[in-house]
Amino acid sequence: MSDDVRAGLEGVTVAETSLSRVDGEAGELVVGGYPVEELAGNATYEEVVFLLLEGRLPTADELDSFRADLAARREIGEEVRNVLRRAADEGLPAMDALRMGVAAANLGGETGDERETASRVIAVVPTVVATYWRYREGLAPVDPRPELGHAANYLFMLTGEQPTERAVRGLESYLVTVVDHGLNASTFTARTVVSTESDVVSGATAAVGALKGPLHGGAPGPVLDMLREIHERGDPGTYVRETLEGGERLMGFGHRVYRVRDPRAAVLSEAAEQFYAGSGQAEFFETVERFERVAVKALAEHKPDRPLETNVEFYTAPLLWGVGVPPELFTATFAVSRVGGWTAHCLEQLADNRIVRPVATYTGPTGRTWTPVEER
Amino acid sequence: MSDDVRAGLEGVTVAETSLSRVDGEAGELVVGGYPVEELAGNATYEEVVFLLLEGRLPTADELDSFRADLAARREIGEEVRNVLRRAADEGLPAMDALRMGVAAANLGGETGDERETASRVIAVVPTVVATYWRYREGLAPVDPRPELGHAANYLFMLTGEQPTERAVRGLESYLVTVVDHGLNASTFTARTVVSTESDVVSGATAAVGALKGPLHGGAPGPVLDMLREIHERGDPGTYVRETLEGGERLMGFGHRVYRVRDPRAAVLSEAAEQFYAGSGQAEFFETVERFERVAVKALAEHKPDRPLETNVEFYTAPLLWGVGVPPELFTATFAVSRVGGWTAHCLEQLADNRIVRPVATYTGPTGRTWTPVEER
Repeated sequence: MSDDVRAGLEGVTVAETSLSRVDGEAGELVVGGYPVEELAGNATYEEVVFLLLEGRLPTADELDSFRADLAARREIGEEVRNVLRRAADEGLPAMDALRMGVAAANLGGETGDERETASRVIAVVPTVVATYWRYREGLAPVDPRPELGHAANYLFMLTGEQPTERAVRGLESYLVTVVDHGLNASTFTARTVVSTESDVVSGATAAVGALKGPLHGGAPGPVLDMLREIHERGDPGTYVRETLEGGERLMGFGHRVYRVRDPRAAVLSEAAEQFYAGSGQAEFFETVERFERVAVKALAEHKPDRPLETNVEFYTAPLLWGVGVPPELFTATFAVSRVGGWTAHCLEQLADNRIVRPVATYTGPTGRTWTPVEER
Repeated sequence: MSDDVRAGLEGVTVAETSLSRVDGEAGELVVGGYPVEELAGNATYEEVVFLLLEGRLPTADELDSFRADLAARREIGEEVRNVLRRAADEGLPAMDALRMGVAAANLGGETGDERETASRVIAVVPTVVATYWRYREGLAPVDPRPELGHAANYLFMLTGEQPTERAVRGLESYLVTVVDHGLNASTFTARTVVSTESDVVSGATAAVGALKGPLHGGAPGPVLDMLREIHERGDPGTYVRETLEGGERLMGFGHRVYRVRDPRAAVLSEAAEQFYAGSGQAEFFETVERFERVAVKALAEHKPDRPLETNVEFYTAPLLWGVGVPPELFTATFAVSRVGGWTAHCLEQLADNRIVRPVATYTGPTGRTWTPVEER
């Protein structure tokens, strides 16, 4: 491909945003003005979404009514449930079901107000994911409970059981940590969609489709398989050596933007450590930490010009698995969080908009003349 | 916004393509190597889609099997029909219903083969649009007929009646003319989505969402209202003068890329002229042509620095209305055609891919520190 084609748009600035700042060199992430380390462990998901939408944290009264408003928008209708059941019956992945469910998010409640639509879309994602999962497990869907917070209600809809406080805290930390991250592919997709003056449902649906791709939504499921295998074998060093000598990649390391350790990995590592302490599975988490140390050292020796540091997927896998999210839903659970960022970016784009229309270099033929089919 | 922010990505080259070339200065459009004037009036929609997907026109045998293959993929299941009925019952626009239907396009037939998925998505769009429309009119959906071509079958599913040859030819010209047009917002969206190694259903769904926005999908419905009003009043000159003196915009003129007359306007003008000749409504079309001449002249005098030339919407409105497409479905009928371009671009992107991830300038605060809710 020619050099003047900016295929990945790397380094091309396409927007101004006050939502998040990613500093890949320093390994820093700011969300709504706060370093991510200030938010994870302190904020609830609802607080961070309010922060993104309003530019500041809510007062106690504002938080109460925002939580109640989101909780009131969680239900999905029978028609959408039946589509999700069919997707589950056909064995389609969770992200396909989520694309179908989000695409229909304005059924039953279109108001024409994009701020309200954002709340509806954020509220409905956990319901869509959990409903799909229940069907896939051959179980009846669990209705959302308005008295539960966003994170607790998601776990409740997955299992039908009141989640432990430990699990809710672990999931909350995850949801807060990955809610926004600059102009990643799905967020940029959402902004491009609404740049035509389309709507937030269309923007979020498009973003789900982009997050579905493994280059973006990643592969936390395989990371978990790897970590469990290493734990069973009990010898991270041999695994690392064999993998690298075999010319293969170690999953959970390296990121397009970060040149140092992804700040979200640190935050999620701490959340996972707190979750696993006294959980009865503390040994598994010790293996995870030991593996990280061995792997980072080996990678630095293996590729000294560009050490591959721990990325966000590495600690996502043990944390989500620990709190009870099945690996088949890891990417969809990423969406449960990231939809807060997508919708905030849509509103920001709409407030100061210019339609996105780049150009392409044409490399095909020209000047062909028509030949009727019988003469071909 | 700062000057180094390329908000609209104007003039930024993000891909190489062999699908279409838009020359805005010369007013030329090449599709699959052919000037659009060579294709419209000659090619069927199926031939042009084959051209985009394979890079050449099909032989007679290839065309037969491609038509049969598309025709065999037109059906949608009961679950999707029920979602479309609900959308129609709630008065949601056709593009919302189309987003829901395309999002679920892989129900009942996921093969994992993206080339087959492209055919499925192309085949299913007319069925989704027509099913929604039948429900909206309080009628039962009409099953597709495999022996009808793509254009004829769409009209058949809308009305339940065998369309006239004249109408099929008019719609065919439209579908061929607008099938692809460089990296417009919806096509770029589709490519960005699959750049994560996502799939064609996700790419096309996202593109529907982008096309929904009036800055892209446009407003051929209002153009038609305007043309009909002018025809009733019988005096284009007065309408043009009053509109421009009132500081208002004349719909159907001006385009971000073209500096001269949109080549598609010429092609559609000819198709519409052929359709209206001897149709019993030839007088209406004469008004349309007279209005175009008066408006272009007046616009050139009104804004001599940049004359606003006739755009594709101007002739889309009378042509689609003439062949029997209701104005509420004009943008969705644009999608019936453009999905051929979207899916071809998805496959082209996947064949030589790099994930799209631009950057943003952060304009928000930094260094905030956490305050618990009770202290806010």
